[in-house]
Amino acid sequence: MSEKTSSVHYINYLALDKILDSQYLASKEKGDEAHDEMLFIIIHQTYELWFKQILHELNSVLKLFKADKIDESNIGIVVNRMDRVNKIMTTLIGQVDVLETMTPLDFLGFRNHLSPASGFQSHQFRKLEVLLGLKIEKRHQPGGCPYHAQFEGVKKQEILNLEDGESLFALVEKWLERIPFLNFEDFDFIKKYENAVNEMLEKEITEIKSADLTDQDKTLRIRMIDENRKYFERVLNEDQHKGAIKKEETKLSYKATMSALLINLYRDQPILHLPYQFLRSLVELDHKISTWRFRHMQMVEKMLGQKIGTGGSAGQEYLKQTVDKHKLFTDLANIATLMISRSYLPELPQNIKDKLGFSYVK
Amino acid sequence: MSEKTSSVHYINYLALDKILDSQYLASKEKGDEAHDEMLFIIIHQTYELWFKQILHELNSVLKLFKADKIDESNIGIVVNRMDRVNKIMTTLIGQVDVLETMTPLDFLGFRNHLSPASGFQSHQFRKLEVLLGLKIEKRHQPGGCPYHAQFEGVKKQEILNLEDGESLFALVEKWLERIPFLNFEDFDFIKKYENAVNEMLEKEITEIKSADLTDQDKTLRIRMIDENRKYFERVLNEDQHKGAIKKEETKLSYKATMSALLINLYRDQPILHLPYQFLRSLVELDHKISTWRFRHMQMVEKMLGQKIGTGGSAGQEYLKQTVDKHKLFTDLANIATLMISRSYLPELPQNIKDKLGFSYVK
Amino acid sequence: MSEKTSSVHYINYLALDKILDSQYLASKEKGDEAHDEMLFIIIHQTYELWFKQILHELNSVLKLFKADKIDESNIGIVVNRMDRVNKIMTTLIGQVDVLETMTPLDFLGFRNHLSPASGFQSHQFRKLEVLLGLKIEKRHQPGGCPYHAQFEGVKKQEILNLEDGESLFALVEKWLERIPFLNFEDFDFIKKYENAVNEMLEKEITEIKSADLTDQDKTLRIRMIDENRKYFERVLNEDQHKGAIKKEETKLSYKATMSALLINLYRDQPILHLPYQFLRSLVELDHKISTWRFRHMQMVEKMLGQKIGTGGSAGQEYLKQTVDKHKLFTDLANIATLMISRSYLPELPQNIKDKLGFSYVK
Amino acid sequence: MSEKTSSVHYINYLALDKILDSQYLASKEKGDEAHDEMLFIIIHQTYELWFKQILHELNSVLKLFKADKIDESNIGIVVNRMDRVNKIMTTLIGQVDVLETMTPLDFLGFRNHLSPASGFQSHQFRKLEVLLGLKIEKRHQPGGCPYHAQFEGVKKQEILNLEDGESLFALVEKWLERIPFLNFEDFDFIKKYENAVNEMLEKEITEIKSADLTDQDKTLRIRMIDENRKYFERVLNEDQHKGAIKKEETKLSYKATMSALLINLYRDQPILHLPYQFLRSLVELDHKISTWRFRHMQMVEKMLGQKIGTGGSAGQEYLKQTVDKHKLFTDLANIATLMISRSYLPELPQNIKDKLGFSYVK
Repeated sequence: MSEKTSSVHYINYLALDKILDSQYLASKEKGDEAHDEMLFIIIHQTYELWFKQILHELNSVLKLFKADKIDESNIGIVVNRMDRVNKIMTTLIGQVDVLETMTPLDFLGFRNHLSPASGFQSHQFRKLEVLLGLKIEKRHQPGGCPYHAQFEGVKKQEILNLEDGESLFALVEKWLERIPFLNFEDFDFIKKYENAVNEMLEKEITEIKSADLTDQDKTLRIRMIDENRKYFERVLNEDQHKGAIKKEETKLSYKATMSALLINLYRDQPILHLPYQFLRSLVELDHKISTWRFRHMQMVEKMLGQKIGTGGSAGQEYLKQTVDKHKLFTDLANIATLMISRSYLPELPQNIKDKLGFSYVK
Repeated sequence: MSEKTSSVHYINYLALDKILDSQYLASKEKGDEAHDEMLFIIIHQTYELWFKQILHELNSVLKLFKADKIDESNIGIVVNRMDRVNKIMTTLIGQVDVLETMTPLDFLGFRNHLSPASGFQSHQFRKLEVLLGLKIEKRHQPGGCPYHAQFEGVKKQEILNLEDGESLFALVEKWLERIPFLNFEDFDFIKKYENAVNEMLEKEITEIKSADLTDQDKTLRIRMIDENRKYFERVLNEDQHKGAIKKEETKLSYKATMSALLINLYRDQPILHLPYQFLRSLVELDHKISTWRFRHMQMVEKMLGQKIGTGGSAGQEYLKQTVDKHKLFTDLANIATLMISRSYLPELPQNIKDKLGFSYVK
Repeated sequence: MSEKTSSVHYINYLALDKILDSQYLASKEKGDEAHDEMLFIIIHQTYELWFKQILHELNSVLKLFKADKIDESNIGIVVNRMDRVNKIMTTLIGQVDVLETMTPLDFLGFRNHLSPASGFQSHQFRKLEVLLGLKIEKRHQPGGCPYHAQFEGVKKQEILNLEDGESLFALVEKWLERIPFLNFEDFDFIKKYENAVNEMLEKEITEIKSADLTDQDKTLRIRMIDENRKYFERVLNEDQHKGAIKKEETKLSYKATMSALLINLYRDQPILHLPYQFLRSLVELDHKISTWRFRHMQMVEKMLGQKIGTGGSAGQEYLKQTVDKHKLFTDLANIATLMISRSYLPELPQNIKDKLGFSYVK
Repeated sequence: MSEKTSSVHYINYLALDKILDSQYLASKEKGDEAHDEMLFIIIHQTYELWFKQILHELNSVLKLFKADKIDESNIGIVVNRMDRVNKIMTTLIGQVDVLETMTPLDFLGFRNHLSPASGFQSHQFRKLEVLLGLKIEKRHQPGGCPYHAQFEGVKKQEILNLEDGESLFALVEKWLERIPFLNFEDFDFIKKYENAVNEMLEKEITEIKSADLTDQDKTLRIRMIDENRKYFERVLNEDQHKGAIKKEETKLSYKATMSALLINLYRDQPILHLPYQFLRSLVELDHKISTWRFRHMQMVEKMLGQKIGTGGSAGQEYLKQTVDKHKLFTDLANIATLMISRSYLPELPQNIKDKLGFSYVK
């Protein structure tokens, strides 16, 4: 079986004899080979290989954030790795198209041999969710059965340990809290920002009042602005924010939220641009995982209609519930609600600008 | 301005002087040009151009189905055009990525100039929904306001006329009802199929009973089969089916459903393959429109967070509601629930096979 | 290691303990782990899994075409499988984006450990090329070294056997030759078509002569038409066609070319639509493999610039050469050159139409 | 035609009455409407709209680089805009799939009405090429006819003016030359790098000599290293580099090349990360334009086979030539050849590190 043994050969390096000998068709074993079972196995194997890669990247990111002192040169690396994870997600979403070439009739040719195996039993995907920060009590649990009941021994323990450890969400929150810009020398960001918001809202109301609109229209628009004002207040006031966390309307701490806001507003400052790209990549990952669940749900609908999944679960319904419910970085997406246009943005004092930038072209 | 006037020039043929002179930046007019408004306008213009193309294709399909006698050679054409529409939808979904390069801060630079314009006012997209078969009473209507209130004069009348005309859904239903295979010479499809279903379910129960499973497991699985049996009965029994239509659990008529079932089961017969591809393309279109709404909703979340849309509507929430609610061909997707594996499929008598195929290679 | 052993578990069904334990980082073994080597291994493993799937589909297609009597109901199946292969190719092309997240500097972290392994040594991809019909003498051979020198023993023999067997190209050619439409009862297709071509060319020349054009323009256009005429003649005349095969300007036999032409011209006939889709899917596959080579070449350029590949070959240059040279179904793409517009198309006699269609809606 | 005239309506804001009334089918005018001409027009109109957007972005980037003093906070903006341009290119490449749903037979239904209009006459695409830096003498000119002969009056003058102005290539080169890092305080980058390269090459040779390889293998590998050494020398030696520019083997100036090398090697330094992303985005744009030309060429092959394009040009051949020949930023891609692995990278002195980074998390 040796291939040019003296030096590395592609086939050995990639362990292809092992990888390509891991497709055991249940239908074949039962003496009734179904052509399409190969696709079913291989696409799931590629999914799992990619999950391994995603875990590899996320674990490396977690490690960098767990360091006592985060080396600033690591944010560039983190951004690259998050970008890679998101590109892998694009592949995962795209390849649902391949599975959709399998028709219900083709699936029926081997479906009964699989029961009760189910994608719900993917150990790596469960790990991925926990690593990102999904808490067991936030999880959609069909039948009320805790999801790690799917696993035994070492594999179960691994999930339980991860649940106890620090997730990406927790580490990002801590990192944001440590960023020193909120009270930077003489610059009180929150106060300056609050003033700017009020100025903006006042100006908008004045404009509406003097506009050529019907009274009804004016009332409607002023009510909209009042809604916005309440939202600003709820987030900016530390006590209200804590109340919102208690009511589970939001998750990210007050201080972390303020830092994320600052990064979004002043992202053009060179030093803040990579942190900005990183925050955005987290929202992107959330959205891509959602989209993958959504496309997965459509695929199940095409394949099974209203039929019950191989694991005895109503697969389509489970997936539908998790599209939204398992999102983790909604608080970062919601920073968008707090944006104010550049014309209202408080000017940074020169001493801060000097810290945040670097004029390398004279 | 003439370009080689004696013969056709690319620039004139495409009316580019007109097309490329149709971007009026509201921010520029207000003396405060926002760089990103160009993108906002251009991407929406490309969306509308593509909607025009989709309407062009769908109208041609409708026309073919409205003919007194449907020429069988047209199904190939219909399949091609549906494939084109679906590829256009892929482009529309993909290009959401471009709009997502615009950040909340960039959007704020011109957003206030647009109010109350809103994508909800796309006349063509409303026409598209009505053409496919979306009924006004099935539509998600935020604030209870009928959607054609957005339009006036000719444009409003156009929508109202479309509402009265025959939609693609209605025409497909009629076409399916006319297909002559349900009682073809001596072959009573529904009866044969019902027998096959019962045989299959009985065999599955026998297998479970003799399997090496816990009693609890056996009970669970037999309950699953009973659920399936009820679903089969509900669809196969004409009276129950009519009841389900009344309760709005389903829409497609009994006869059309049976024809769609037959086409799905016997799609390998050459004459049924194109009809099968056509039915599948309708489910595909439904899914692609859903995915587009879904991605659109994510884009709005990234851009506005919880903020209210330019049209005064909570854009994100509206889009979220329509992802599922505005689907039209779910009944065709649900045919998947009725599939039985090839081993149970009633054999077609030779006289029917001869009609459905053609042995062109001796 | 048992997971709920009494019944099938996802982890066992997919052999995940084996699949996910097949990533041996050479850099780690040398005590100098490079983060990005994991990606390099995993992406190549997914490529190989997908190649296995493509071979599974193509082998099944070959088997259907090797049958003594091709069952017409199989063309639908073949079209589905080719569609699946093409969707897999789309995934393969798309996921080059993931590998491009690896930068030259990251690659250098482990590159020297791989030498001389090279993607050129992919046994499955070589099999794929031979299966489709690539002949060794048509292959781009850098350094003049036969490509199977990369392999030994069983693996080498497998390639050599495939070289001797019937490729997809050969089987498609044979199938086209057997299709009975060229001389169908009283209809002599080639003669009718030739007349139509001449009528078309004459009319075009007449139109040009009476058009409002400069003499120079007229001469130019008439010369263009003469070029077309020559091309038509070369293909339609059996002797000239054989000469062109000898000169390696074309590969597909005269009779097969004529059948492919007929299928393309009369594809709207229901019986010819699936064969038409099949021929088109072959051109599509050719193009997708080319695009994959092209994107692969770009990736190598980004990663290595002008550097020499791990296998000692100038990887980029090899890939560049094969983009075009390894295409197999160019003759089918070139049928496009022979199309004449529908207005010139000879009308099929009713007896043939009856054979090719089926009027299933009264 | 007024729609809610008191305030902005979607239809007016987007000038839809104008945009959607710009599709003039030549076939319809000739009384012989071809269904597919609509697609042909609309897809080209969307291409042109996207070209307008790309020009809008690139012009804004050029403007930022033309400033006397480049504001460092602009590099983040430039990176965003280049990312947008690249995402637009992805859309342009993807939507070739839509045009490929048009078959040769469908195209023939209106093709003769278009002559001699041709995509070659796209004024905006020509502008785009010139703006990026394509010089007329580097351009593939079929028939030797200068490409601006396609245009007249203002449109021709616009191209000629652009040819005289500063292209993106020229501005990037100048910006790279101005970057002050090559001789930064006491750090002589080129010398340090040269030493590192030599150390690396020596070590590689030593390793080969003591390796368990055949003599033939050793000779081969040492020859490979010598090839690399020559390439390093050619680029690092200013005189040789100038010679290479004269021989048109390379274009980018010596100093700019050295700066690009430094940025690539030390990209982890926060201050260099955005410049690194920018350089990478230029290579990406080059590759995406190439891929678009490549897919365009495939589409033409599917539609026309060997037939001559509407503009009298052999469209496919023209496109094929430009895939490679019209690339502009190959020198930046080739920086990859000069990378050395991190273990050989000269350590930056602390005073420089302090300038390039900012430790914002204590």
